[in-house]
Amino acid sequence: MIEKIYVKRLIEYLEEDAFPEDITSKYLERIKARGIVKCKDHGVLAGNKFILPFLKELGFHVKEFSNDGKYIDVNEKILVFEGDASNVLTIERLVLNFLGRLSGIASVTNLMVNRAKEVNPKVRIAGTRKTTPGFRVFEKYAIEVGGGDPHRYNLSDAILIKDNHIAIFGDLSKLIKKIRDSVSFTKMIEVEVSTYEDAIKAYKAGANAILLDNMKPYEIIPIVNELKGKVILEASGGIGPDNVADYAKTDVDIISSGYITHSSRSLDFSMDVERI
Amino acid sequence: MIEKIYVKRLIEYLEEDAFPEDITSKYLERIKARGIVKCKDHGVLAGNKFILPFLKELGFHVKEFSNDGKYIDVNEKILVFEGDASNVLTIERLVLNFLGRLSGIASVTNLMVNRAKEVNPKVRIAGTRKTTPGFRVFEKYAIEVGGGDPHRYNLSDAILIKDNHIAIFGDLSKLIKKIRDSVSFTKMIEVEVSTYEDAIKAYKAGANAILLDNMKPYEIIPIVNELKGKVILEASGGIGPDNVADYAKTDVDIISSGYITHSSRSLDFSMDVERI
Amino acid sequence: MIEKIYVKRLIEYLEEDAFPEDITSKYLERIKARGIVKCKDHGVLAGNKFILPFLKELGFHVKEFSNDGKYIDVNEKILVFEGDASNVLTIERLVLNFLGRLSGIASVTNLMVNRAKEVNPKVRIAGTRKTTPGFRVFEKYAIEVGGGDPHRYNLSDAILIKDNHIAIFGDLSKLIKKIRDSVSFTKMIEVEVSTYEDAIKAYKAGANAILLDNMKPYEIIPIVNELKGKVILEASGGIGPDNVADYAKTDVDIISSGYITHSSRSLDFSMDVERI
Amino acid sequence: MIEKIYVKRLIEYLEEDAFPEDITSKYLERIKARGIVKCKDHGVLAGNKFILPFLKELGFHVKEFSNDGKYIDVNEKILVFEGDASNVLTIERLVLNFLGRLSGIASVTNLMVNRAKEVNPKVRIAGTRKTTPGFRVFEKYAIEVGGGDPHRYNLSDAILIKDNHIAIFGDLSKLIKKIRDSVSFTKMIEVEVSTYEDAIKAYKAGANAILLDNMKPYEIIPIVNELKGKVILEASGGIGPDNVADYAKTDVDIISSGYITHSSRSLDFSMDVERI
Amino acid sequence: MIEKIYVKRLIEYLEEDAFPEDITSKYLERIKARGIVKCKDHGVLAGNKFILPFLKELGFHVKEFSNDGKYIDVNEKILVFEGDASNVLTIERLVLNFLGRLSGIASVTNLMVNRAKEVNPKVRIAGTRKTTPGFRVFEKYAIEVGGGDPHRYNLSDAILIKDNHIAIFGDLSKLIKKIRDSVSFTKMIEVEVSTYEDAIKAYKAGANAILLDNMKPYEIIPIVNELKGKVILEASGGIGPDNVADYAKTDVDIISSGYITHSSRSLDFSMDVERI
Amino acid sequence: MIEKIYVKRLIEYLEEDAFPEDITSKYLERIKARGIVKCKDHGVLAGNKFILPFLKELGFHVKEFSNDGKYIDVNEKILVFEGDASNVLTIERLVLNFLGRLSGIASVTNLMVNRAKEVNPKVRIAGTRKTTPGFRVFEKYAIEVGGGDPHRYNLSDAILIKDNHIAIFGDLSKLIKKIRDSVSFTKMIEVEVSTYEDAIKAYKAGANAILLDNMKPYEIIPIVNELKGKVILEASGGIGPDNVADYAKTDVDIISSGYITHSSRSLDFSMDVERI
Repeated sequence: MIEKIYVKRLIEYLEEDAFPEDITSKYLERIKARGIVKCKDHGVLAGNKFILPFLKELGFHVKEFSNDGKYIDVNEKILVFEGDASNVLTIERLVLNFLGRLSGIASVTNLMVNRAKEVNPKVRIAGTRKTTPGFRVFEKYAIEVGGGDPHRYNLSDAILIKDNHIAIFGDLSKLIKKIRDSVSFTKMIEVEVSTYEDAIKAYKAGANAILLDNMKPYEIIPIVNELKGKVILEASGGIGPDNVADYAKTDVDIISSGYITHSSRSLDFSMDVERI
Repeated sequence: MIEKIYVKRLIEYLEEDAFPEDITSKYLERIKARGIVKCKDHGVLAGNKFILPFLKELGFHVKEFSNDGKYIDVNEKILVFEGDASNVLTIERLVLNFLGRLSGIASVTNLMVNRAKEVNPKVRIAGTRKTTPGFRVFEKYAIEVGGGDPHRYNLSDAILIKDNHIAIFGDLSKLIKKIRDSVSFTKMIEVEVSTYEDAIKAYKAGANAILLDNMKPYEIIPIVNELKGKVILEASGGIGPDNVADYAKTDVDIISSGYITHSSRSLDFSMDVERI
Repeated sequence: MIEKIYVKRLIEYLEEDAFPEDITSKYLERIKARGIVKCKDHGVLAGNKFILPFLKELGFHVKEFSNDGKYIDVNEKILVFEGDASNVLTIERLVLNFLGRLSGIASVTNLMVNRAKEVNPKVRIAGTRKTTPGFRVFEKYAIEVGGGDPHRYNLSDAILIKDNHIAIFGDLSKLIKKIRDSVSFTKMIEVEVSTYEDAIKAYKAGANAILLDNMKPYEIIPIVNELKGKVILEASGGIGPDNVADYAKTDVDIISSGYITHSSRSLDFSMDVERI
Repeated sequence: MIEKIYVKRLIEYLEEDAFPEDITSKYLERIKARGIVKCKDHGVLAGNKFILPFLKELGFHVKEFSNDGKYIDVNEKILVFEGDASNVLTIERLVLNFLGRLSGIASVTNLMVNRAKEVNPKVRIAGTRKTTPGFRVFEKYAIEVGGGDPHRYNLSDAILIKDNHIAIFGDLSKLIKKIRDSVSFTKMIEVEVSTYEDAIKAYKAGANAILLDNMKPYEIIPIVNELKGKVILEASGGIGPDNVADYAKTDVDIISSGYITHSSRSLDFSMDVERI
Repeated sequence: MIEKIYVKRLIEYLEEDAFPEDITSKYLERIKARGIVKCKDHGVLAGNKFILPFLKELGFHVKEFSNDGKYIDVNEKILVFEGDASNVLTIERLVLNFLGRLSGIASVTNLMVNRAKEVNPKVRIAGTRKTTPGFRVFEKYAIEVGGGDPHRYNLSDAILIKDNHIAIFGDLSKLIKKIRDSVSFTKMIEVEVSTYEDAIKAYKAGANAILLDNMKPYEIIPIVNELKGKVILEASGGIGPDNVADYAKTDVDIISSGYITHSSRSLDFSMDVERI
Repeated sequence: MIEKIYVKRLIEYLEEDAFPEDITSKYLERIKARGIVKCKDHGVLAGNKFILPFLKELGFHVKEFSNDGKYIDVNEKILVFEGDASNVLTIERLVLNFLGRLSGIASVTNLMVNRAKEVNPKVRIAGTRKTTPGFRVFEKYAIEVGGGDPHRYNLSDAILIKDNHIAIFGDLSKLIKKIRDSVSFTKMIEVEVSTYEDAIKAYKAGANAILLDNMKPYEIIPIVNELKGKVILEASGGIGPDNVADYAKTDVDIISSGYITHSSRSLDFSMDVERI
């Protein structure tokens, strides 16, 4: 990942918070200060990968930092940097918001990964496209940091035939065939189904993966019994930390969860500032 | 609000999800379809103000819609629009993500407003700058739709002297005076304090508003007794739906809550698509 | 494909050619004119899909047009539009350059597709990432219009382990395993090899596709004999219209060609303008 | 040329190829590598002027490089740089595409310059506006590196009255006069003609240059006999490496050729990568 | 001029003034209003060419307007448009600032043109590159509306060898020759001089135009006597409305003036708003 | 103020002046030079705060500079920097235009501040939104450098109810109440009036500030007598250096002036260039 591509985005976020200027912190110009970022929660850190080159680009000196993926304790220092006091204070909120949101996602992903792997060490937890508009690239990254599979980045990444596509087109088998004949060989074809019959039909029509949407674990098990190892099986729909183990036990390959992005809460980071 | 400014942003979000193309939905070209958006939760709708001109710009025909601020029931239709089936399906996820995130914020804001006003009809619930990077303008809007006060849009909007500023500068009264002598007369000066003594000091130094940070209701009450009506009093720090009434009872003017943006979950919208 | 996303790019191209203004055509203001676009070559038309909404956005009236994919004859009209004479003349060169470049790619792709399918009706012709910087989205589209497979849009689309990756990492089998354990299940893994032994190794390590790089047809045949139907087989390296049939005969699944983008020439479109 | 303006564009091209990330090369993180760029063809190098500051901006260390304009031999090293192996591999294709396209244009321009100057040492070879949309600034630069004249950058650079302008306006002499009375004194006026009579008319009406469009060398000679030295004479239309000498012999001042941009093929650069 | 290119800029200017929203005018939503723009000064109108498509893009209805170039009287209506009251009020200041700045430049340009032409009907008044950063395209346009010559748009438009170039390079004649041998034939070469001797030298070296910098009229006259008609003669340096006639009398071809952009004042437009 | 945000804008301004390239200065490549910026006027310097990081970003070495706010003498050196001669010459005009415009505003602001404070040491001189479109952030900064109050940055900064708002809405007191009940507590409410009666009404309705628009000093005095100290009083309308003292004597708190941005002229900076 060439971070330079992303520094530009963080500078835009800084403009969102500090354009035309931080009218409070400007009164502290020509004082040097150290910012010390800690977390009041525990969880999995995510975001420093982008924050470090961003701070560097702005002329700050990073003194200490933890790597993304580290499991952090309450009040553990995860970032120490120095610069003009006014600038340190100006970027404080962006740094905290960014780390908080990403670490929140990484942490809940990690929680689900752990709960799932306890009962099924091979299962993977995946994200969805249910992300905050404009911020997906970072939220998908956070999922990976938490041990999850980012799933499709967007609609161009893989074929996913959903209920609405079938409702419009009509015959599932014909649609799969039409797509297979035309889509690039580099793309996987996944099909969303909600019954045993459709799962079998999708498999026979040549899908690479089958998404079992909003099905109960007991409905999933017969499909797994039939198709496991022949096609990738993904469970999705209403799965969060509380029920992920139930789905993991069905022996599906993938469990995807919108919860980790649309319902996760930010970790609570704060920054102390010291004059130096 | 001149929506044209914002349509551009929604088109960027569409690019995030659909660049270079929706490789699944493209197989449905030259079919007309109707998209019907419903919500599986109840709550306060927010986001249609931006979605409507966005859909129009893309050539869709909007047939029915609810206005932002409406309290919506489970499964109530809130948007019906028509266009090419492939396009309807391509924008589905963005529309749902956008409405879900904004309505989630509006709904939890509204919940806090209602709980607070039950015990103190004059109190206002305000947001913070703890928003998703790049998405603030919409999250602040959602706070307003929910009946909240958006608070400072960013660091240029008003003076807010926080603990870190004082830690760096030293004397609070001198800092207030220095700022008052120089800052534009169009700006309010608010000061964050966490003790009775500092609240009094800030008031005497000429602050327009005082933010009582991370104080218990019983610590706030004596300050309210002393300063109510002389200066705007704001409580903040760890306040959410569960304890907002306790703070409202203290008779502060404003209760601000990061919870409504950093910990709210999206409302669960879905879209049915019909061939027409 | 929601064309609105692309109109913005065409307007940027117009700025490239016409900023701050067309100092010649401006002397023709307040005259109405019709532009009639023809091709001096024959081949496969590509580009109108984007030109039409672009012309509409600028206020022109499109009177006639051919669809992308049409095989056009010499001097066949493929686009007729009307507007201010000065504006018609200002956009002339961009329209011709755009259609010329895309149709050139579509035509040579189509030529290769036809030559290959004559000897192997199931083989597919694919593009590469050897495109003009900044213009890829349109060049990939032209490949599809010509009947080709666009292959990976970019480096995030699928895994392709090339010689340089192996040179750096060391063991191919270990690298495939490392990637398979971590990469999203939505991604295909392709491996570039140049010997029979490496092809077998890649297959055994679990690659979904194998790219046979710079191999002669007679070197490819034993690999096809061994692996056909078990893994997708792609031939690449120095393949153009003159030798594509030789590769098609080997019964590989995919033949990819940088030639169609890095060495194709534009079709020669011209525009007549009439006063109306 | 202040290259900083252009680095931004190369970063956009990198995003085209590597957003959100290079999912293959990322598995090579924390290894250092050296990239060695060579050319499998011979020709005139163009593009390093932009590639060097781009590599520097991304944090690579450039160890060796050839200057643009150098005539390079087959397999000659033209660029050596070092950095993280994953990053070296991520930018490989962009570097090769960029150098390939520019050097291809520079090389064919240079070929035409050499063939023309052999028979007419004073003649100049010029480009046209037949460039790839969005990429003109680099293609015009490549023409200059190859020894050519870039001609008008765009429609604001000089007056060029073409057949379509005359078709719409009517009288050529009146149009020249109208423009001369109004256009900035800093602009040249060139007129496109295709007959002896129109060439004389354009000269008498005060054109600074006359473009002899799609005329045969024997048709051009009488015009040169009449107007050489009185006005700049440019031949254009269907001129490429094979017939450029014929046109050079007519003693026109300028020969412009769309061929060098719309029909040139890329030089074939490749990159070796070594672990360091 | 294809205005669509410029509407985008006006929308950016609107964001400058109205992002995230006009917090006052929003309280007037759902009322229709008419905006009537007048000028408290008299002068030459410039800017409506861009304001009209901008208003249309935003959904306003333009009812009446004057064309750019019209000489407007005090209190003459120059633009009437209708729309939502809140939106009419939100764009008021931008419309007035834009028209004021452009009309101010057009008016002072026109004043200088008139004063100069009274004594020398053939002389032209030209602008310079002394424009407001980022706003040049509109300021150059205003010069043309006022009857002036915009001169070079920027540094790529024509060669202008200034004192600093000669100071660095050394020999003027050699520099002209070096440039002539290499620069595109489409470019004029102008040379800045401040003595009779250098003017003659520049002419002999083949300059197309000579800029007589900071010379008094009596110093210019001998140069005009010698070179008039052989080369374009331009006077520049400290010329404004008060002394333009003195320079016009010298019979130079061009008088350029930074005054018209760096020292002009805006015309005073205002807007009345009526409920409809 | 984190200057990095602003360097990007200066690079855009450079593109305006130097895209695609400075065709004159390019002939001076590979010579080192020193640029020495002086001012032919005296006044208050503004702009170096942004020029310094801009020069650094482009690779120049700054040797000497004066700080913004310094009162500079005629011919005083205010900036010395070194780099490639061609680049030094390419950025010359932008540097001079930028410093000239900002210093012009700072100087006239400072003149008004001085004239006003002579008769009323507590009065403040404020700017308006009458700025050059797109360039406001720098013009507001220049006002501050000159000792002025920037006033509202834009329409989201504070409530300012103007005559047109009242004309549309009807009752002033009701409008103030409606806004007060809804607008964020962080915003000041200012009301524009032009009579004694309306001033009193606005005060009683709870305005924080009252703008006395286009009133004569003798009309203002009774309002000051009544409201001074109870509400912020601002005079505006036709106030410039010549009459500012008359308004200062009325003892209003604030005097705002569009003159300082819409009618100020640039200071005349020039640059000498020496070979080094």
